[in-house]
Amino acid sequence: HARGRKPWKLILQIVKIAFITIQLVSFGLSNQMVVTFKEENLMTFKHLFLKDYVDGGMDTYALYRQSDTYDHIYHIITQVSGFCKNSKNKWITFNNGAHSGRIKVDLETDVDINECRDWKVSGASAKSIYLTVLFDCLIVVMCITSFTLCTRSIINGILLQHEYTSYYRKRCGKHVPWLDKLEFVNGWYILIIVSDTLTIIGSILKMEIQTKVVTNYDVCSIFLGVGTMFVWIGVIRYMGYFRKYNILILTLRAAFPNVIRFICCAGIIYLSYCFCGWIVLGPFHEKFRTLNTVSECLFSLINGDDMFPTFVNMKQKSSLVWIFSRVYLYTFVSLFIYMILSLFITIITDTYDTIKQQQQSGVPTSELQK
Amino acid sequence: HARGRKPWKLILQIVKIAFITIQLVSFGLSNQMVVTFKEENLMTFKHLFLKDYVDGGMDTYALYRQSDTYDHIYHIITQVSGFCKNSKNKWITFNNGAHSGRIKVDLETDVDINECRDWKVSGASAKSIYLTVLFDCLIVVMCITSFTLCTRSIINGILLQHEYTSYYRKRCGKHVPWLDKLEFVNGWYILIIVSDTLTIIGSILKMEIQTKVVTNYDVCSIFLGVGTMFVWIGVIRYMGYFRKYNILILTLRAAFPNVIRFICCAGIIYLSYCFCGWIVLGPFHEKFRTLNTVSECLFSLINGDDMFPTFVNMKQKSSLVWIFSRVYLYTFVSLFIYMILSLFITIITDTYDTIKQQQQSGVPTSELQK
Amino acid sequence: HARGRKPWKLILQIVKIAFITIQLVSFGLSNQMVVTFKEENLMTFKHLFLKDYVDGGMDTYALYRQSDTYDHIYHIITQVSGFCKNSKNKWITFNNGAHSGRIKVDLETDVDINECRDWKVSGASAKSIYLTVLFDCLIVVMCITSFTLCTRSIINGILLQHEYTSYYRKRCGKHVPWLDKLEFVNGWYILIIVSDTLTIIGSILKMEIQTKVVTNYDVCSIFLGVGTMFVWIGVIRYMGYFRKYNILILTLRAAFPNVIRFICCAGIIYLSYCFCGWIVLGPFHEKFRTLNTVSECLFSLINGDDMFPTFVNMKQKSSLVWIFSRVYLYTFVSLFIYMILSLFITIITDTYDTIKQQQQSGVPTSELQK
Amino acid sequence: HARGRKPWKLILQIVKIAFITIQLVSFGLSNQMVVTFKEENLMTFKHLFLKDYVDGGMDTYALYRQSDTYDHIYHIITQVSGFCKNSKNKWITFNNGAHSGRIKVDLETDVDINECRDWKVSGASAKSIYLTVLFDCLIVVMCITSFTLCTRSIINGILLQHEYTSYYRKRCGKHVPWLDKLEFVNGWYILIIVSDTLTIIGSILKMEIQTKVVTNYDVCSIFLGVGTMFVWIGVIRYMGYFRKYNILILTLRAAFPNVIRFICCAGIIYLSYCFCGWIVLGPFHEKFRTLNTVSECLFSLINGDDMFPTFVNMKQKSSLVWIFSRVYLYTFVSLFIYMILSLFITIITDTYDTIKQQQQSGVPTSELQK
Repeated sequence: HARGRKPWKLILQIVKIAFITIQLVSFGLSNQMVVTFKEENLMTFKHLFLKDYVDGGMDTYALYRQSDTYDHIYHIITQVSGFCKNSKNKWITFNNGAHSGRIKVDLETDVDINECRDWKVSGASAKSIYLTVLFDCLIVVMCITSFTLCTRSIINGILLQHEYTSYYRKRCGKHVPWLDKLEFVNGWYILIIVSDTLTIIGSILKMEIQTKVVTNYDVCSIFLGVGTMFVWIGVIRYMGYFRKYNILILTLRAAFPNVIRFICCAGIIYLSYCFCGWIVLGPFHEKFRTLNTVSECLFSLINGDDMFPTFVNMKQKSSLVWIFSRVYLYTFVSLFIYMILSLFITIITDTYDTIKQQQQSGVPTSELQK
Repeated sequence: HARGRKPWKLILQIVKIAFITIQLVSFGLSNQMVVTFKEENLMTFKHLFLKDYVDGGMDTYALYRQSDTYDHIYHIITQVSGFCKNSKNKWITFNNGAHSGRIKVDLETDVDINECRDWKVSGASAKSIYLTVLFDCLIVVMCITSFTLCTRSIINGILLQHEYTSYYRKRCGKHVPWLDKLEFVNGWYILIIVSDTLTIIGSILKMEIQTKVVTNYDVCSIFLGVGTMFVWIGVIRYMGYFRKYNILILTLRAAFPNVIRFICCAGIIYLSYCFCGWIVLGPFHEKFRTLNTVSECLFSLINGDDMFPTFVNMKQKSSLVWIFSRVYLYTFVSLFIYMILSLFITIITDTYDTIKQQQQSGVPTSELQK
Repeated sequence: HARGRKPWKLILQIVKIAFITIQLVSFGLSNQMVVTFKEENLMTFKHLFLKDYVDGGMDTYALYRQSDTYDHIYHIITQVSGFCKNSKNKWITFNNGAHSGRIKVDLETDVDINECRDWKVSGASAKSIYLTVLFDCLIVVMCITSFTLCTRSIINGILLQHEYTSYYRKRCGKHVPWLDKLEFVNGWYILIIVSDTLTIIGSILKMEIQTKVVTNYDVCSIFLGVGTMFVWIGVIRYMGYFRKYNILILTLRAAFPNVIRFICCAGIIYLSYCFCGWIVLGPFHEKFRTLNTVSECLFSLINGDDMFPTFVNMKQKSSLVWIFSRVYLYTFVSLFIYMILSLFITIITDTYDTIKQQQQSGVPTSELQK
Repeated sequence: HARGRKPWKLILQIVKIAFITIQLVSFGLSNQMVVTFKEENLMTFKHLFLKDYVDGGMDTYALYRQSDTYDHIYHIITQVSGFCKNSKNKWITFNNGAHSGRIKVDLETDVDINECRDWKVSGASAKSIYLTVLFDCLIVVMCITSFTLCTRSIINGILLQHEYTSYYRKRCGKHVPWLDKLEFVNGWYILIIVSDTLTIIGSILKMEIQTKVVTNYDVCSIFLGVGTMFVWIGVIRYMGYFRKYNILILTLRAAFPNVIRFICCAGIIYLSYCFCGWIVLGPFHEKFRTLNTVSECLFSLINGDDMFPTFVNMKQKSSLVWIFSRVYLYTFVSLFIYMILSLFITIITDTYDTIKQQQQSGVPTSELQK
């Protein structure tokens, strides 16, 4: 166990967490403003260019007659010609894809999250952008340092494991078990390495957005977000140094493989319900229309979603389907909420008891710990 | 125990699962398209033929005056005469069933899931239909093979059981217990046989739909759906071969009779609440109008449905009923969520502990396993 | 223990359950029809007499100007004078109670659940009414028989208890414990007596409704409903004869006092949250307006109601109240869902284990059972 | 342990609880009336002064064209000039903050909870106000008495602890453990002191509101509300005197530190999900717009909020974000509902078992109790 770390290593991690969080919050706050602006702007354009548009009614905003379609196009042309708010491009789509006689209309603008200009709106000057970029650079440097330190520790661990393996093979004539080999690799270091990598890529993307008007916002935010998430989850490791906290973390870790195993079993039953519900109830309920929404609907039902609307909105065309839908929903909910959820609780309780007894009796779990 | 199966039997099952799933998904995707078309088409007709129709307002689309009724009929006649979109039949119903002065209007079309024509819409030719039918035939052949193999295994099991019974009677002079007799019949084989039968019927119906324009879609989808569901549930059996998974499956199986027993007890209390709620609260709350919706409402309440609207929408005509409704809802929810749900968890936990101890001590459960 | 009952006593109970259920279902179905008629009728009148009435908009149907009020009254007078649908009385209320400048308008009719006339609507003749009343009489007779039998059994039990008490005092010189005395009184008989009493009163009221046009429907339905509910709960007793069912029923019964005790503790914390939420959050959220809705809202929150709207709809006037509302909701939900719900599960689990061990070891629980 | 209190001390507390509750309820009921008046009044003004205002549509009540803005202002001026309902001030805001072309309009009045005038509305005279103030004074006196008594008891406890500490140090030569020192300070007394302080401040503020037309209603209600809440929680203490109740209270108290510890661990994972969800999903879903709503949304999801809308309303612009949102929501809900909730139950169950065994074996928990 490589636990004798120097304190400055810990300090680096703490400062890193603080800086990454500040970076994320400032990034989030600036985006928040931009998103509000975009939304209100889109709403304005819809009110100006779409005839008889009513707020929140985009789902049912559609045309059914040839004359209506001409009227709407004429209205748009009149409005656009006499109006020049700003130079953003607008797309108005007339969607007649299904040839069903219903033409859906949609409007979109290209107001991307254009940092530079929006910073100006909130009073930001070139100076503040430079400062932000500097701050991002600092974070990249810290992450690289943390990355190299953790990589070194992991390499040391692997070297030690190789030594131990050859020593063990000589003395006992047996191969070291797979699980004992894993003991040499500290999982927390791997977590830190992954989070550092993600944060570095995210920060570089963020700097590019702020300087070169590259607007791949989604990818950048996923990297930064997941990076920050892993950094914070890493904090739990420091809690494990206190004995009372340790049992909880150990239980979560020990229960993990059992939970995954159980999720596999439950997942197959779940999948079979998904297939069956999709094919039979698809034409009769909007929530069962696609395989994806069936899965979301069933998952939500287990976790306390409104069940009554699901029951009631089932179109009651044929009584056979009606009976099937009732049997389907009652058995699914009973099976998953009562049996499978209870079994989850049982697994966790069982693991906790095992861990507690191990701690009290002090029995080593593997050959290595002896 | 008939566990020494040849690997090609396993391969047959795996290939069968894959093929059935592909069949189901392709069937589902094609239906999905048809259903969307049907819905948009119906919406178009409603907008064209029903006067002043507003999207989503079918519940309140009703007439209250004689003159309005004449107006609406005149509007429909005008629209239909000057319009000839396609040759589908449309039914417009004026429903005055309750003689209450309120006439509900509804519109329906007969666009059934007419595979042939819709395949054309998505660019499908006669060739692709033949391929689909061939694929279905292949599945039917596989299911018949699987069906005969499993039937043979079950017959072998029953023969073995008869031998054992006569041997046991001679040697011990006692009758073989009922549960020991059941040990010879592998439940998984029965599951496969049932799923094969359902899939065969479903596939034949599907072929008829695609070739002979028979449109009994609902029955076909129920057979195919439930068949696929059972096939997938059968996959759990292969997981039982791994020891760690086995305990979960064993617990689920062992807890099953206890859970069913407990559901009977809870079901009676549930039923008594249903009757009482229906008769007393029926006139005061829409969810308690029919015995069926009462059951759905109460079931949903236990499993996390919105309770507040149920409380609030109770019409407050008489204070006696108001007090009753509060007592009714508070006691029902407390009883079912706190006592009965907890007892479920207890039953499962208890079963798990029993199974675990049995596995650790290795005590046989019946005479036969000795 | 008075367990050696003759089988015809059991048969009486079973026939009684069947008859009472049939009575309830037929009563419920006829009311269901009447309620639908009443609702559609009320809707029709609202559309005819209230100016610019829109379906479902009764909450916001109000007047704000003097001229509007005159217009509405004039509209009503015109409609009523030229219209004579039937002789039912209608009340239209102009509610200016709060002197706030907002006048709410409401319309009500006096279509009570007038059985006689409505039976005619569904084609019922005088004959069918006589049959119904006969059926009700039969139920009353059965309930009186069941009532007398159970009363006799209870009186026997009490006599036996007196004998035992005097015998015990002579022999042991001690008083019989309170709990042992209760053992002589069979709780199930008391349940049957209560349900019989309720059903008799309910059936008599029902007969009066059907013959003498007394229309106290609510009271009748509460008596019949609660009576039927208790009759059905009594069925659980017969399940206790099977050993495996018995443990569940015993657990529920044994856990009951502990659960009640715990509900008292939790209830006090609950009440304190209710008071606090009402006084502080009342002016800022509609759900916290009255003490009654606060209780319903909090109860619903624990049992899986939508929490997000409760958070979001909190009017954000003062930041102090905003912070308070967050602390209030987070602590309440955490405390009740995580700690108190878990403790419930613990209590039930503990009781189940105790009962199970008692059954296995066969230790008697009181002096009497020895 | 200072348990030998005289009964009049208990009586004081009970009378105090009764009086504080009466004060709170009467305060709440009077405010309830005022709030209803305010709301209806505000609604009236909106209908009178805002052009084309529709009930419940304040979210979408906005202007998009220059001409519309002029129209609305003109309409307001016309209405206000010809109208003089009462002398309250009204503010109408035209909010063009985001420069997005959308101008939100809002109306507010300054009808504060002006007790004096509103008392008049409900027929209250100067006499009733004096009585109310007298009642408040009585409560203040009772709270001060209770406060001084409890403070005395706590001081006695501390003195006793000092004596014990010096005695213990002499005899055993060791320092008294920190936890043993705490045993001398009765936590319930501290609770009572805190609640008394809050109630005194709240009552004084309430008297000022009723006499001097100071209208700091929010602060007053928070003090009174939290004070009353603590007073009621203090009632649990008296329940602890019964042995059966005691185990529940002891379990809650003993589990508390473990629960807090576990909440810290879970809170960090929770926080990491909040950060990640906010930055990535913020622009695509309204619930993830601000860090605060993200936290509320996730907390609600764990506790049974509608999950399906959260899934469905995710704007499906980029498939990368779509996949991320699914992974994010599925893992979050599974982790928190299945693992962490189960661990909570485990902790409570474990604590209960420990407490129960301690009570049965009668082992003292600390040096002091010996």
